[in-house]
Amino acid sequence: MTELDYIRDGAEIYRRSFATIRAETRLEHLPTDVARVAVRMIHSCGMTDLVEDLAFSPNAVKAAREALLAGAPIYCDAEMVASGITRKRLPAGNEIRCTLNAPGVSELAQRIGNTRSAAALDLWDRVEGAVVAIGNAPTALFRLLELIADGGPRPAAILGLPVGFIGAAESKVALAENTLGLEYLVVHGRRGGSAMAVAAVNAIASEQE
Amino acid sequence: MTELDYIRDGAEIYRRSFATIRAETRLEHLPTDVARVAVRMIHSCGMTDLVEDLAFSPNAVKAAREALLAGAPIYCDAEMVASGITRKRLPAGNEIRCTLNAPGVSELAQRIGNTRSAAALDLWDRVEGAVVAIGNAPTALFRLLELIADGGPRPAAILGLPVGFIGAAESKVALAENTLGLEYLVVHGRRGGSAMAVAAVNAIASEQE
Repeated sequence: MTELDYIRDGAEIYRRSFATIRAETRLEHLPTDVARVAVRMIHSCGMTDLVEDLAFSPNAVKAAREALLAGAPIYCDAEMVASGITRKRLPAGNEIRCTLNAPGVSELAQRIGNTRSAAALDLWDRVEGAVVAIGNAPTALFRLLELIADGGPRPAAILGLPVGFIGAAESKVALAENTLGLEYLVVHGRRGGSAMAVAAVNAIASEQE
Repeated sequence: MTELDYIRDGAEIYRRSFATIRAETRLEHLPTDVARVAVRMIHSCGMTDLVEDLAFSPNAVKAAREALLAGAPIYCDAEMVASGITRKRLPAGNEIRCTLNAPGVSELAQRIGNTRSAAALDLWDRVEGAVVAIGNAPTALFRLLELIADGGPRPAAILGLPVGFIGAAESKVALAENTLGLEYLVVHGRRGGSAMAVAAVNAIASEQE
């Protein structure tokens, strides 16, 4: 029987992974709770230099964690984000919502002249005090900021991690420079994605590494 | 009504994204079919330098595409991969299978002394000629190579994109250096992940950008 040389113990793989990340990454300047989130985000993408692009409001992780503890739902812009969140880490059986493929979203998008990802926000019905995790679409993040600026409901925290070449970097700057007093965490630049958004939620949901 | 400055037309965002990637990325050395896959993988992560770590057997994309056209299933190591594949791009309504959370996988993992991700392969029942997309667990890729070395069924192509710090790079070297004649595509090093694996499958599934 062929046996290649690798570690087969899942818990040991996790332990060594997080130890490697902590050994290789500059984390000293981060608050403890943010560092924990950063470690898990780095784990999801394999890049320790992610930390250089990380920006956040001082209370973002605390606010998101308290919201989850209080039973707040988690709104996601993409099914992959919703799919990746580890249910058993959630402290209050929190609801995970993605409305991208809900009936009527395509028509809604046409009506408002925006993407489906942006239109899907019109079906988010408990945003006040919720955690929002955006791991794909800059337009979803832009539209969230527009709705809040116009007096719409305010999430407890926004994990802004859209990815890509058109609008992603700009949408994260808009979030980080918001004058609405929103709690946020972003990775500036083009990097981001569903796995990173999932990692952030999973880290905030439970303090267990 | 607040209107931030961004592109709201989904098709235009795609067009400009792919144009930006093609303008910024060195693709000339790649076969046309691999370049198309690379562009979509870069789109999923925001990093044009991904192409430097890309390695593949010459017929990998062709073999995967022909398998999908012939109706082959797609096996995934993670639910996020299975969740992200765009059903309507698939040429033959191909089945997408992830057995990670199937009943009995935890017990199976204990019995074989490996991770759940590796044990889940024992429930893959149509691997011969299938497309395998690994976007998370190095142990799944290692175990797949072990099973094939021992005479197990051979996929048409393996998209090897596990991510992380422990075993990921090594598992991709093992795949790329396989002496089993397997068709493969990998991103060497620590980078990888479910979004990248999804992008590769979506690119192979349909030639439409």
